[in-house]
Amino acid sequence: MIYLDNAATTKPNELALKRAETYLYRDYYNPSALYAEGYNINLGLREARKNILSHIADCKKYELIFTSGGTEADNQAVFGGGKRGNIIITKGEHSAIYSAANELKQRGLEVRYAELNPDGGVNAESLLSLVDDKTSLVSVIHVGNETGAVNDILSLAAEVKKINRYTLFHSDGVQAFGKIDFRLSDCIDMYSVSAHKIGGIKGCGALIKKSGLKIKPYIYGGGQENGLRSGTENVFSIKCFEYAAEEKFQSLNDDYNYVSELKKLMIENLDKTIFGILSSETASPYILSVYAEGVRGETILHEADDNGVIIGTGSACSSNEKNRYSRVILACGLSERAADGVLRLSFSPQNSREEIIKAARILNDIVSNRKRVMS
Amino acid sequence: MIYLDNAATTKPNELALKRAETYLYRDYYNPSALYAEGYNINLGLREARKNILSHIADCKKYELIFTSGGTEADNQAVFGGGKRGNIIITKGEHSAIYSAANELKQRGLEVRYAELNPDGGVNAESLLSLVDDKTSLVSVIHVGNETGAVNDILSLAAEVKKINRYTLFHSDGVQAFGKIDFRLSDCIDMYSVSAHKIGGIKGCGALIKKSGLKIKPYIYGGGQENGLRSGTENVFSIKCFEYAAEEKFQSLNDDYNYVSELKKLMIENLDKTIFGILSSETASPYILSVYAEGVRGETILHEADDNGVIIGTGSACSSNEKNRYSRVILACGLSERAADGVLRLSFSPQNSREEIIKAARILNDIVSNRKRVMS
Repeated sequence: MIYLDNAATTKPNELALKRAETYLYRDYYNPSALYAEGYNINLGLREARKNILSHIADCKKYELIFTSGGTEADNQAVFGGGKRGNIIITKGEHSAIYSAANELKQRGLEVRYAELNPDGGVNAESLLSLVDDKTSLVSVIHVGNETGAVNDILSLAAEVKKINRYTLFHSDGVQAFGKIDFRLSDCIDMYSVSAHKIGGIKGCGALIKKSGLKIKPYIYGGGQENGLRSGTENVFSIKCFEYAAEEKFQSLNDDYNYVSELKKLMIENLDKTIFGILSSETASPYILSVYAEGVRGETILHEADDNGVIIGTGSACSSNEKNRYSRVILACGLSERAADGVLRLSFSPQNSREEIIKAARILNDIVSNRKRVMS
Repeated sequence: MIYLDNAATTKPNELALKRAETYLYRDYYNPSALYAEGYNINLGLREARKNILSHIADCKKYELIFTSGGTEADNQAVFGGGKRGNIIITKGEHSAIYSAANELKQRGLEVRYAELNPDGGVNAESLLSLVDDKTSLVSVIHVGNETGAVNDILSLAAEVKKINRYTLFHSDGVQAFGKIDFRLSDCIDMYSVSAHKIGGIKGCGALIKKSGLKIKPYIYGGGQENGLRSGTENVFSIKCFEYAAEEKFQSLNDDYNYVSELKKLMIENLDKTIFGILSSETASPYILSVYAEGVRGETILHEADDNGVIIGTGSACSSNEKNRYSRVILACGLSERAADGVLRLSFSPQNSREEIIKAARILNDIVSNRKRVMS
């Protein structure tokens, strides 16, 4: 199989799994326990916390709260940061932000939605025009999970703070962390990351926040994670996350260049009389959104699967979306007819050039055959 | 090492880990993905859901929501069920319930606390006297995590419903599930379970709820778990949970009898001129709470650790408890002096009789030496 749905989840990094295995078979103690064996696990967690954080932030200025994944981290940011007045999100947010904001709206807060540019990035002008003295939180996805669009969150956060310095700025960094070169600046108050998008395993993520920032816990209990996230720590997954991140950041630039080449190769090899390209050149090379007008994305997906190519349609994280069309893709300005045929091809450094060329050929064949049958 | 802190966490079941390994190395796809490989993972999740649930409930009457652990399940029950008027918890609740209830109190709800009997079980009269027409939720721990006291939740729930049939009844079953013989009756609306207390791994649990019962999600996003718990499912841990539970329930009664023997052996071999026994005979055999008046539990714990015996003091789940004395133990009526010396010995079918006898001798020696030095 040619796996091109790496934005949905990545194949876990086998070396990271092997290194972390001791936390399953030998070092299984509860990290909150007072005896030496428990305390040692606790030290392992501290190390993981520091190592993961150090890849993108100054450990003196930021701290990291382990969560059960990107979705929980996003929820903690929205419910912890969106406390009064209005909050602003973009129309390109992952459903973890979108649905949490929707729940805040049910509870009486005002939620404002910033428009997208045609490539899926947020329209800065639209976003900034929404900020006022009552804005408690702004959340902007770093790399759009459907389009790959990269938002310049450092500059957006700085602009937001110029308008209201009390507004908290959060970014969902799930598709950016370990993939694009980036460090947190002072303007970013909170940042969400996930393990299973970079070779870690499902069920693990983190909310990174500025050290001075006081936010409420979202899950209450024994007071783990400095009182900010209770529940026995998911030690094995956390250590896998640490080790997978270590590898990712070691080869981040090389991977970026290689995956950029794969993306270019895919675009070159797709039949442009059939496929429109939604993602812009400045998008993350890891995600390429394309569409075949007049053929359903889901149909192409199944036929590709039968032919050994695994691809996504929009966001795989959204398992029960009632709407047929992706709200993000529609917000990019695509017609419903085009949105219906959107495919998300997402790459990994493990993909070979040959796989890309073969996948492009298979996709071309599927769509042209369909069109022939339909005409 | 002789491991007697199995209530804090258990050594993962190696057979379960091996069986689930395919979800790390081969079947790593996102269960929400539309292609066959993703759908197959989804089927695996359904199977896990049904299998785990079937051990304690009628799958037509109850449904199961996978969470990141017992703590999250407890939080969802408290925040989802405690919506208005007052809620009632016992003084013997795990901190996941206790702290979540405390947060509800901050938000303006009234929280009422039912008294404990000297063995740590809830005083039924006290509990029922608190229920009135404004009670939205009652939460009673099934097996006390510090004392092992077994609450008769079926009868308590039935009594609560007689007073107010709209009151939701929740129970934290983390120390009961897979350990004591039990099935959910109609009076129980919600029930929390955890994987890592029965040979699963940390970071996985579930909230079981009556099928007809409408509760709000606690984590919002892609709509996984039937819209009730978003976030990419923690597939590997969920399958480990399923397989570990399968084994546990196969040998539940044999294990219960064997562990009862271990508990009895421990009580027989502990020097009763030194140790008081807090847990009653009707308590779960998996947890034995004892105290050595005049010697700090923490001191004994460390010295036992140096001598190859791992034990707990109160709840290991409470990592940052500011109070020196366990609130649960004090609620049992123990003096602060006695509470200071409380140890929790918690057993597993993997412990041998020889280990128990040896551990008792070591504990006797530690405390008698300490007392000799002090006198």
